[in-house]
Amino acid sequence: MTMDKIIRINMGAGKAPSVTEEGLGNYAGLGGRAMTSSVVSTEVPPLCHPLGEDNKLIIAPGILSGTAAVMSGRLSIGCKSPLTGGIKESNAGGQPSQMLGRLGYAAIIIEGKPKDDTLYKILVTPGGVTITPDNKLKMLGNYDLVEKIKEEFGEKVACISIGPAGEMKLSAASIACTDPEQRPTRHAGRGGTGAVMGSKGVKVIIIDDTDTRFRSPIDFEKFKEANKIFTQGIKAHPITGEGLPAFGTNVLTDVLNEAGAYPTLNFKGGRFDGAAIIGGEALATLETQRNGKATHGCQKGCIIKCSGIFNDKDGNYVTKQPEYETVWANGGNCGIEDLDTIAMLDRLYDDFGLDTMDMGAALAIAMDAGLAKFGDGEAAIKLIKEVGKGTSLGRILGSGAAVTGKVLGVERVPVVKGQAMAAYDPRGVQGIGVTYATSPMGADHTAGYSVATNILGVGGTLDPLLPDGQVDLSRNLQIATASLDSLGLCLFVAMAILDNADAFQAMLDLVNGLTGKEFTPDNFNALGASVLKKERDFNYRAGFTSKDDRLPEYFKKEIFPPHNVVFMVKDEDLDQVFDKI
Amino acid sequence: MTMDKIIRINMGAGKAPSVTEEGLGNYAGLGGRAMTSSVVSTEVPPLCHPLGEDNKLIIAPGILSGTAAVMSGRLSIGCKSPLTGGIKESNAGGQPSQMLGRLGYAAIIIEGKPKDDTLYKILVTPGGVTITPDNKLKMLGNYDLVEKIKEEFGEKVACISIGPAGEMKLSAASIACTDPEQRPTRHAGRGGTGAVMGSKGVKVIIIDDTDTRFRSPIDFEKFKEANKIFTQGIKAHPITGEGLPAFGTNVLTDVLNEAGAYPTLNFKGGRFDGAAIIGGEALATLETQRNGKATHGCQKGCIIKCSGIFNDKDGNYVTKQPEYETVWANGGNCGIEDLDTIAMLDRLYDDFGLDTMDMGAALAIAMDAGLAKFGDGEAAIKLIKEVGKGTSLGRILGSGAAVTGKVLGVERVPVVKGQAMAAYDPRGVQGIGVTYATSPMGADHTAGYSVATNILGVGGTLDPLLPDGQVDLSRNLQIATASLDSLGLCLFVAMAILDNADAFQAMLDLVNGLTGKEFTPDNFNALGASVLKKERDFNYRAGFTSKDDRLPEYFKKEIFPPHNVVFMVKDEDLDQVFDKI
Repeated sequence: MTMDKIIRINMGAGKAPSVTEEGLGNYAGLGGRAMTSSVVSTEVPPLCHPLGEDNKLIIAPGILSGTAAVMSGRLSIGCKSPLTGGIKESNAGGQPSQMLGRLGYAAIIIEGKPKDDTLYKILVTPGGVTITPDNKLKMLGNYDLVEKIKEEFGEKVACISIGPAGEMKLSAASIACTDPEQRPTRHAGRGGTGAVMGSKGVKVIIIDDTDTRFRSPIDFEKFKEANKIFTQGIKAHPITGEGLPAFGTNVLTDVLNEAGAYPTLNFKGGRFDGAAIIGGEALATLETQRNGKATHGCQKGCIIKCSGIFNDKDGNYVTKQPEYETVWANGGNCGIEDLDTIAMLDRLYDDFGLDTMDMGAALAIAMDAGLAKFGDGEAAIKLIKEVGKGTSLGRILGSGAAVTGKVLGVERVPVVKGQAMAAYDPRGVQGIGVTYATSPMGADHTAGYSVATNILGVGGTLDPLLPDGQVDLSRNLQIATASLDSLGLCLFVAMAILDNADAFQAMLDLVNGLTGKEFTPDNFNALGASVLKKERDFNYRAGFTSKDDRLPEYFKKEIFPPHNVVFMVKDEDLDQVFDKI
Repeated sequence: MTMDKIIRINMGAGKAPSVTEEGLGNYAGLGGRAMTSSVVSTEVPPLCHPLGEDNKLIIAPGILSGTAAVMSGRLSIGCKSPLTGGIKESNAGGQPSQMLGRLGYAAIIIEGKPKDDTLYKILVTPGGVTITPDNKLKMLGNYDLVEKIKEEFGEKVACISIGPAGEMKLSAASIACTDPEQRPTRHAGRGGTGAVMGSKGVKVIIIDDTDTRFRSPIDFEKFKEANKIFTQGIKAHPITGEGLPAFGTNVLTDVLNEAGAYPTLNFKGGRFDGAAIIGGEALATLETQRNGKATHGCQKGCIIKCSGIFNDKDGNYVTKQPEYETVWANGGNCGIEDLDTIAMLDRLYDDFGLDTMDMGAALAIAMDAGLAKFGDGEAAIKLIKEVGKGTSLGRILGSGAAVTGKVLGVERVPVVKGQAMAAYDPRGVQGIGVTYATSPMGADHTAGYSVATNILGVGGTLDPLLPDGQVDLSRNLQIATASLDSLGLCLFVAMAILDNADAFQAMLDLVNGLTGKEFTPDNFNALGASVLKKERDFNYRAGFTSKDDRLPEYFKKEIFPPHNVVFMVKDEDLDQVFDKI
């Protein structure tokens, strides 16, 4: 099966939504982020309302998705973002990407807008696509929704769905993807993609890949050999082979806290007293004690297995292992040092369909505004339950950190382009500040993970407290990331490919073997650069300027302990990131 | 007394706020909007947080304020706007402008930010300025506040103050000025200036001009003669001499409804069944019946007297005569056809310190979101009382129409640069659409009142339903308005000066006589153009582009009854407004 079809769904067509299947046309050869950003850039009017009929939601498996390549199941979801007003690609793990790839679909494009508030489910099978109204699904949490879908369609389908937050069209609403246990735990969290899906009247896309197989590479032997070397490279790297499997992404809590770059109490300092209590080792130990899992893949074909299963004290499932950024946003950033509280928040976010990062940032801002005390976990859970109930307070928080700050009159709001920063203070890791400032996505650590070289010693080393070299580093990482996001590869493979030339070549050979076409290091870079150019151009046409490529002013003025530094990369240097792409 | 001093107050200085008096320096010769926009443009970093220490609040009487010139008491208030993120000049009538002028102050500049949440009052007298903490004033409505100030400082002082909305730093918070009866009824409503005053910890500025006199013109005879001719011109014009005195600004309800350009039910149509019930004639009749006043000046020196006094059915004072835009925003735009309801809303807005227009727009959006039914006046009052209480819902609404739309997930939000449109649909009055789109202030009918020529036949005539000529019209009016706002003249003098060459020359001669310097028609235009350039430049440096000079897309797509037209001025023509200044 080649991935050569696009499903185009018009939710605003006549009396009922329409579906057409079409060839790839100008989108041939694209996948993942290259696909979503190309479609948004080509088809979405930059000044349209993100919740209006002219916006489109594009769901695209990566170029390697649906193959036997390890780590190749990231799903890209794109649109004009209700959170940032710019282009958005948010990606997620889970099962859907591999399944869509095996079904031969390079993209699902959802456009138009229903005339009434009917809610629809979309079923994608080898036999075709059907769209059915189903108002019984209204306002279901993702967990209850998936249970209902399971009853109707069995245990082998995957779901791409929204919770109440998406139906309410809140700007921090995520889109959930089910994991191998058919739980809605993997989210395209950032940028409010869930609100766009909600505005289209789509509750869930059910994917049934019964009787499909891995996509066949053109050069099977080359592909197979490349996959072997790629696997070895990932397993041999200390981070992807040891740290992440053992402690998950939360292994970073200790590292960033030690580095004094772990933002605490709404970005007021870089060290958190409770770090050890909520860090990776404590989390893994607790999971194991309670018969959960400390090592678990979020999708089939994963060999890193940085996820896990978090049970309560009675051994009952609560949520998947909360990611480092979730533990931070709702832990250290809110002064909360209790893993059960953080896990419950993670569960609620997954169930309501919300970005754990923008929500944690919003919670800390609410605490700064006096709505709860820093460190009060019960209050935090209560606040987040308001979102599920759709109260006014819940709607404020669910609109994300920027709106929460505006409505509550708080000045210190750590966002760029309306999107909240992640678990790395840009004063303690100056390189990530460059990425936060300049990524077309808004503040986004994954868009160019300078932490790797600033803190982890991956891809070389660079002093995290100095501005020197950070612009070049961020640019190179943003280009590489845009390529990886297009291939459908998990970002963690970057650790291996940055440090191991064989692994990098093997990754290229996976594409070579699959497509039979030459995919060189230059092609890899050109792919990422072309994606960034399209994204940047869309944002330009949407009214963004260099003034949007700036951190909030207080990061340049407010001294950050323990290093007592400010963000020092100059504005004119930030403008060099894209001037040289 | 010449107006040659600036009071500079640093609310963030050391242990207590500091006051310095300084000369005009580079700001010599400026007043009103020319003063506020020059100071903002020169001294405020364009990317600063509007609620942060780097923003400044500038309060400036007009160039003619404090003189015996009729209609010369408009006060300009400027800052970086928390509502739009751009530069803001919002102006108000009432007593303070004349009094500040007589005291010789060309501007009060409030900068910095207190370190704690102490609330201050500032007293400006002929003997100097004193700043006193007074936390007993916290969260007082403007009416109660003014009562307290009256007890302490007597019945002759004027107040510039904020209500709870400003203290809560809500983006639709206004700054109130007291009228001749010492009631807080005249507001610098637009753009959230009240939130900036709140962020500076200033509750009220009390102005005591005891024993001061009119500013003396250099050429007294010329000035006196000019004032006479100017007065005659205003009294001779049918709008300023008859319509406005008899029925107030609300005379426009019938006119705009008849023209089919009166936005109803959140901008869904141009005619309102209840127009006659809430129009100018009905309002004046009711006011007279209840022993209020149908004709009343908002400040001493006013000869138009377009205001009035609105009493309840028992003859007790409720509020000043609600303005046309208030009656529309909270009447026709919300489907409400009851003057008592509208007057109560007006009273609440004045008391809480809120922009009646952005709030009415927010109410209609809340109705579109299902929070109340269109036409339900009791529900509207209940919603607005939430703002006074500071509930979450109240904070959403008090943040203005744009944020309300975002938080409630509503797509049809009639704002430009985050500020709500006024009582003229840009499809029914294409000329005002050009002003909404391109004014540096955000959607603002007063910034270039094309309605005059499109609908009222003032300054010539132009078909309101066609795009032809609208760009030139809006540009010319924006320039003239920026000059009038700088002179401190009430905008309604524009009716006379547009139609009567003698009145126009008399207005110039008022300045000639006052200053002894030549003030020609070219100087008048150059003044306005220079103000707009500074404002535009500030916005550019704050990240605004031509993409911000656009109406929301739906005005170009959604057909507007009864004329069944869309907004037809082309984007490239909108860009000609400022390309030619």
